[in-house]
Amino acid sequence: MKNFSEWFHNILEEAELMDARYPIKGMSVWLPRGFQIRKYALNALQELLDKDHEEVLFPMLIPQSELAKEAIHVKGFEEEVYWVTKGGKRDLNEHLALRPTSETSIYPMFSLWVRSHMDLPIKVYQTVNTFRYETKHTRPLIRVREITTFNETHTAHATEEEAEKEVMEGIEIYKTFFDELGIPYSISKRPEWDKFPGSKYTMAFDMIMPDGKTLQIATVHNLGTTFAHTFDIQFENEDGTHDYVHQVCYGLSDRVIASLIAAHGDEKGLSLPPVVAPEQVIIIPIIFKENQDVVLNFTDNLEKLLKNNGIRVKQDKRELRPGKKYYEWEKRGVPLRIEVGPRDIENNTIVINRRDTGDKEFVDYDENTIVDVVKDRLDSITHDMKEASNKFQEEKTFAIEKPEQIKKTINKKGGIITCSWCGETDCGKDMEEKFDIDVLGTQESDLENKTCINCGKDASYKVLISKTY
Amino acid sequence: MKNFSEWFHNILEEAELMDARYPIKGMSVWLPRGFQIRKYALNALQELLDKDHEEVLFPMLIPQSELAKEAIHVKGFEEEVYWVTKGGKRDLNEHLALRPTSETSIYPMFSLWVRSHMDLPIKVYQTVNTFRYETKHTRPLIRVREITTFNETHTAHATEEEAEKEVMEGIEIYKTFFDELGIPYSISKRPEWDKFPGSKYTMAFDMIMPDGKTLQIATVHNLGTTFAHTFDIQFENEDGTHDYVHQVCYGLSDRVIASLIAAHGDEKGLSLPPVVAPEQVIIIPIIFKENQDVVLNFTDNLEKLLKNNGIRVKQDKRELRPGKKYYEWEKRGVPLRIEVGPRDIENNTIVINRRDTGDKEFVDYDENTIVDVVKDRLDSITHDMKEASNKFQEEKTFAIEKPEQIKKTINKKGGIITCSWCGETDCGKDMEEKFDIDVLGTQESDLENKTCINCGKDASYKVLISKTY
Repeated sequence: MKNFSEWFHNILEEAELMDARYPIKGMSVWLPRGFQIRKYALNALQELLDKDHEEVLFPMLIPQSELAKEAIHVKGFEEEVYWVTKGGKRDLNEHLALRPTSETSIYPMFSLWVRSHMDLPIKVYQTVNTFRYETKHTRPLIRVREITTFNETHTAHATEEEAEKEVMEGIEIYKTFFDELGIPYSISKRPEWDKFPGSKYTMAFDMIMPDGKTLQIATVHNLGTTFAHTFDIQFENEDGTHDYVHQVCYGLSDRVIASLIAAHGDEKGLSLPPVVAPEQVIIIPIIFKENQDVVLNFTDNLEKLLKNNGIRVKQDKRELRPGKKYYEWEKRGVPLRIEVGPRDIENNTIVINRRDTGDKEFVDYDENTIVDVVKDRLDSITHDMKEASNKFQEEKTFAIEKPEQIKKTINKKGGIITCSWCGETDCGKDMEEKFDIDVLGTQESDLENKTCINCGKDASYKVLISKTY
Repeated sequence: MKNFSEWFHNILEEAELMDARYPIKGMSVWLPRGFQIRKYALNALQELLDKDHEEVLFPMLIPQSELAKEAIHVKGFEEEVYWVTKGGKRDLNEHLALRPTSETSIYPMFSLWVRSHMDLPIKVYQTVNTFRYETKHTRPLIRVREITTFNETHTAHATEEEAEKEVMEGIEIYKTFFDELGIPYSISKRPEWDKFPGSKYTMAFDMIMPDGKTLQIATVHNLGTTFAHTFDIQFENEDGTHDYVHQVCYGLSDRVIASLIAAHGDEKGLSLPPVVAPEQVIIIPIIFKENQDVVLNFTDNLEKLLKNNGIRVKQDKRELRPGKKYYEWEKRGVPLRIEVGPRDIENNTIVINRRDTGDKEFVDYDENTIVDVVKDRLDSITHDMKEASNKFQEEKTFAIEKPEQIKKTINKKGGIITCSWCGETDCGKDMEEKFDIDVLGTQESDLENKTCINCGKDASYKVLISKTY
């Protein structure tokens, strides 16, 4: 992929995912195909969340007084909050914020809901639209003014230990989710100066995009008791004493779809893992006038058979030459293409093409086994797509030792570099400025080199560095 | 139900559906149980829509210039539009409306999408939040400032005939949907002065609430070519000439959940049709210490059996007396309750209780048939709940002949009255004022009495009249 930025821009249109021509900068329209991918991705995520969380829905507007309550938090967002100031022709007494994120809409209610330790834990999530008045260059799905798909989980616990456990649970859910979608990631603990405003610490998932820059695709925040103090979320223990709850929140957004597109796409267009593909299988009947009935009879049966066995399948009977159809469905990223022509029927075979590898396979056709064959190939695709994208992330991650390697490696190879770091904010910010990079965060690791790559002091962390979106 | 208004207010809290204490008037929080009911209702609707429409998602904000384009339309909404005027600390160059409804966000894109007759029809829908700055008294789900669940379908067609067909399709979809949920309705064509701003005509569904007032629960609008002219949605015919598209839109909202609650609830609380019930069956093991294992072994098996057969089932093993559990699950509206005690197991029976009728039934327990028995009872409940609520709507609909009956009937009996009407706007508005009622709309009908009930002129319509929410 020569120019990822241009490719990404084009694929949204060519694969009919989004229309970016909406007359407000940074806001786009989900087209039917894009919407379906989004839906299947959300389904996969919600299935994981539903095991241990309940879905809720909070209002979109937040009173200014509530948003302002948590000072550090509001400072992190105030530059980019959209404000409703008028209702009809009247000026509102209190301005209302379009939620930039929902802590300050949810936690005043938590305060009402939590009375006793019996009310804990609370573990809820919602999928909503949120808003940021982005002044930087916007890009669909990546840097937007309306995040149409913000899936956010909010929890409250009686103890710090339970909150820590919830952090781990959030990380596990996202790992499983990204693995299912074949989206690679590196997890790190964001540095102090880049954690979520108001949180104790932030764990983040970053994916290396094809252009070598990293995209933050999910975050898990341990909020400690900051918001509990601000919004007075207290509970009574069994012994009658009162404590503030410990809170965790985590979320991901439209960027999941961006990372999905970027992780698997190629010069031919989109390439979708079966779990999110609107069509997992596209059947192309190769029709000539004289034997049309025989072929269509065969492909109709095949389509019905696959559909009845829970496979999302579509048949393309349009009067176009097969090559044009192949081209279109490849661009749309359908994982498996089945071609059936009159000769194939005579030979009792069908042709199966994989979108991810381009592999072509002649398969003996047997009604009793074909469903298993197709399911097996879809599973292989899922597995191999994940392997391939993980391999890319690994190969683009470079361990280095010397400061002069930082800029050289990033500029030449892109991706993530790892090295030893003292962990001091001053040193970290100095590095960011000096080398024109971003400190993603730290990982627990036994360091071989115990000297900070930048300041030379004792190093206690393995740090991840990249250029970021 | 003595006081519906109070009952409705309480049921939202008692059945754990919504929390109305959110710190903005007219905006409430969907609690987990309420959210699930909403989800199952939406699933049922979307299954119907998906057969012939595609799901999309448009941005929430609309530029002032777009909203203002369709003059009649904007006039209908301008008093109640929320305006975003600030981004961060800056004043926006152009104010942005929180969508009150989405015509003016969607149709500028239709204009880009439609070029040739080959691009038609377009049939899309979305489920979104919309906003109205209500100055009247608000009430959760019924009159709100954030409609959290606005399901709206928008279509564009080459001909007037196709648009008419789409109107019929929309009506059929809503009829099927409301029938599935056992929500009764009367369909009428709204009078000229109450049609959707900018439309040719509006077909509406109204349900008679327990207090006798009607609630509009869905509308289908034939938009003609009004918006096509405003937003320049033209297509090229095969012969090279150009035409404006004919458009239809229809929608329903949170009110569906209000009508669901109102149609089936009673003094014991909520009563849910199985299709939307978070739990279709609640199993209550009657546990005494000495035989706990026997009972729980039995109920665990039963739970597993039902679950494996696609029934949403839950078992309540809490250490509470059964009566308290019955009370709680009745309040929450679970359609079927199964009680199993040690004596039942000895007798090889289980006790099945219907929430809708209160009927209690001893059923011989047989692993091979119990799933069918439960499914059969759930089907009966669905059927009977629909019958009962339809009966209420019918019994509350009164055909009258004389003007003096209007006020008397409405005030004494509530509901809908039907009579003959000339169809003139002046006469209709006069009636509304004189009798303090609302003209819902007209139905096609062979009139026995061909004299207008109000002005005495020739009557050409059967008109539906009520007090409305």
